Amino acid sequence: MQVFSKERLLQDLPSCPKVDGIDPIDAADRLAKMAAIGVTPEGGITRYPYTEEEKQVKEVFRGWMESIGLEVYEDSIGNLFGRYLGEKPELPIVMTGSHLDTVPNGGAFDGALGCLSSLLALEALIKQGKKPKRTIELAVFVDEEGSRFENGLFGSRVMMGEVTVEQLENFSDAEGITLPEAMMAQGYQPNQIDLSRRLPEDIFAFLELHIEQGKILESEGKHIGIVNGIAGPSWRSFTFLGSTDHAGNTPMHLRKDTVAAAAEFISGVEKLPRTFSPTAVATVGKVNVFPNGTNVISGKTEVVVDARDIDEASRDQMLEAITSLAQEIARNREMEVEIEKGISIPPVKVPDWIQNKIAQAAERHGLSTRTLPSGAGHDAMIVGKYVPSGMIFVPSHQGKSHSPEEWTSLPDCMNGIQVLIDTLFELAND
Amino acid sequence: MQVFSKERLLQDLPSCPKVDGIDPIDAADRLAKMAAIGVTPEGGITRYPYTEEEKQVKEVFRGWMESIGLEVYEDSIGNLFGRYLGEKPELPIVMTGSHLDTVPNGGAFDGALGCLSSLLALEALIKQGKKPKRTIELAVFVDEEGSRFENGLFGSRVMMGEVTVEQLENFSDAEGITLPEAMMAQGYQPNQIDLSRRLPEDIFAFLELHIEQGKILESEGKHIGIVNGIAGPSWRSFTFLGSTDHAGNTPMHLRKDTVAAAAEFISGVEKLPRTFSPTAVATVGKVNVFPNGTNVISGKTEVVVDARDIDEASRDQMLEAITSLAQEIARNREMEVEIEKGISIPPVKVPDWIQNKIAQAAERHGLSTRTLPSGAGHDAMIVGKYVPSGMIFVPSHQGKSHSPEEWTSLPDCMNGIQVLIDTLFELAND
Repeated sequence: MQVFSKERLLQDLPSCPKVDGIDPIDAADRLAKMAAIGVTPEGGITRYPYTEEEKQVKEVFRGWMESIGLEVYEDSIGNLFGRYLGEKPELPIVMTGSHLDTVPNGGAFDGALGCLSSLLALEALIKQGKKPKRTIELAVFVDEEGSRFENGLFGSRVMMGEVTVEQLENFSDAEGITLPEAMMAQGYQPNQIDLSRRLPEDIFAFLELHIEQGKILESEGKHIGIVNGIAGPSWRSFTFLGSTDHAGNTPMHLRKDTVAAAAEFISGVEKLPRTFSPTAVATVGKVNVFPNGTNVISGKTEVVVDARDIDEASRDQMLEAITSLAQEIARNREMEVEIEKGISIPPVKVPDWIQNKIAQAAERHGLSTRTLPSGAGHDAMIVGKYVPSGMIFVPSHQGKSHSPEEWTSLPDCMNGIQVLIDTLFELAND
Repeated sequence: MQVFSKERLLQDLPSCPKVDGIDPIDAADRLAKMAAIGVTPEGGITRYPYTEEEKQVKEVFRGWMESIGLEVYEDSIGNLFGRYLGEKPELPIVMTGSHLDTVPNGGAFDGALGCLSSLLALEALIKQGKKPKRTIELAVFVDEEGSRFENGLFGSRVMMGEVTVEQLENFSDAEGITLPEAMMAQGYQPNQIDLSRRLPEDIFAFLELHIEQGKILESEGKHIGIVNGIAGPSWRSFTFLGSTDHAGNTPMHLRKDTVAAAAEFISGVEKLPRTFSPTAVATVGKVNVFPNGTNVISGKTEVVVDARDIDEASRDQMLEAITSLAQEIARNREMEVEIEKGISIPPVKVPDWIQNKIAQAAERHGLSTRTLPSGAGHDAMIVGKYVPSGMIFVPSHQGKSHSPEEWTSLPDCMNGIQVLIDTLFELAND
């Protein structure tokens, strides 16, 4: 039994805002049609890249793009595009979109709502007879989640020229199928990924609507999130090395207990972000204790810190403070601490002028807004490195995402689409 | 290549104390002969109960007992005994001994040194022509470690009547062999375990020499540890239940982060024992974080506490304080905490008069002593529930045990044996 249902969406139909050119029942219907592809026994959705499920959802979506008159094409790796020609097709375009792949047993909104919103926004503009100056291009990026090949944001990275043919062979799925093999099995050309490259100067701006995947909008009762930056994560692992001893025969003062050191460290990490910036977060989600036995004082404990901020300097300063804290605790406890740097993705700031356009669109329709960072990575984070990019967030019920319980109410979806329509049109006339 | 070696033991021969009736080279030789049985590729020793290795080491040991004239017999489950008849055999006996089984890849001293020391002590008394009033009985208990069937202290528990025939079927090894099957394969009678029972009134006292398995004696430079009690462990598991959220999209103030709660808890647990008693210890050696992903705020973290003290009331008060702390932290963080009680073994106190005899013996030979609790369980903990029991500890180099690196120098062994000889003779004349 799927957790998502069209009926549950339609319960809120009476409180849906009127959006010119869009029927909320139709929107719910299309969300449900996509959600029916890749349903799992656990009630969620699994659509990995380069699979039949993904192919099927893209075919459905392609049909919708064609039905509203977009000029549809697919690139060499499977990114799917639909063009709504502007008055001046020679100008750099405005791009909007998201992705249709999911995490394993994921929800119906992550990615899919962004693609659908872009589609419905273009449909609304077409129905309203509003032809923008610039061409607007809808993009459905392949493999954003990275769940099959651990190689996320693949479609947007290829589009921006960040991936070489040689790198593709490094990735394979749980069954040993390599990324190029999977691509070829679906009829794509891994050795021609360069054909998928787009030049930054050909794109004027990129805009992505997405579920918040957090609790801020819901907890503050706001309609629209205006993303001010995408906080790239930086990971660092700290392994405390003490002494493995018998829990019974070692008095407290003769211990070099790495679990106790790790606990002191984690408590410190929790307090640090507020001293750096209101948008900073630091998380310890992974702790590995060795040997992890009830009656053994641990001589080795690994703690992995995930630090994020939309300002790179602030984030890196926080990481340095975290590192100093680990070293100080190890010194005080006469232990060693091994420090290893993990991924570090530069944060992307959303230009003020794009944030302002989103804010004005919301205000025009009487919608409340909250400026907030995106802590999760998105295709807009990749495109945003090269092209002015913005994001519109809609509320996530209880902050749940990457789960069958993922939920955004139909009125919240419609509010987001309304703001997307206006912002897209503004950008395309800029 | 075994980590233990006779050559290394003999390097300290020049500094060995003279013990009347005992040749330290012979002691080293016998330790090495036992250590050669069950050698592992990792340089340690594995001798599980009811295996060929255990049979072999017991046969060697039986030969030694017979060679000094002890009256040797084995009970229905494989506990091995050797009697040195006293002047008044009708009196309750004094028992001394330890075990010859090991943990996987264990060391050469845990158990084996206790058995050998008892043997050499009796040999010394015999050579010195000292016949005590009471019979002294050497005991080699089967399956103290519990490494094969997770049913430790088996031999002493059966001897004290704590095990029923029906319970035996509940235990099986990693290959699915049940305890009764393993016993029968070695010629023992699992349905006749009652024959192995000894009555407490028939035993005047029990005395076990053992390596400390801790660092106190070495760090304080003491020769002999006088055990004042055996601190039975009490285990309690605390599972914090918060909210699983995205590490990027959840600001610090909207989190219910169970890793942070666990860290606060562990830091508190580390500080509590000193407020209860100097012998109290509390350890968190096991922490399980769910889902344990770097970019996921954990909604569930399990922390297992091992609390010990030689005083049961003090230990239980400490556990209640630990429990209150967990509840307070959960309440402050608006989380749940599930609490589950694990094993709880009552501590055993060593009677002062036995501690005094050990202290006097050490003083007589100019050996320094330290009174200390045993945090680990031993056969003396089982026998001590019913019969006045004492333990003599000798230093463990760097506190290492249950490891191939387990080490006690030959002089330290000889000092321990000297104190054992005197104490046994005193007890047997009491």
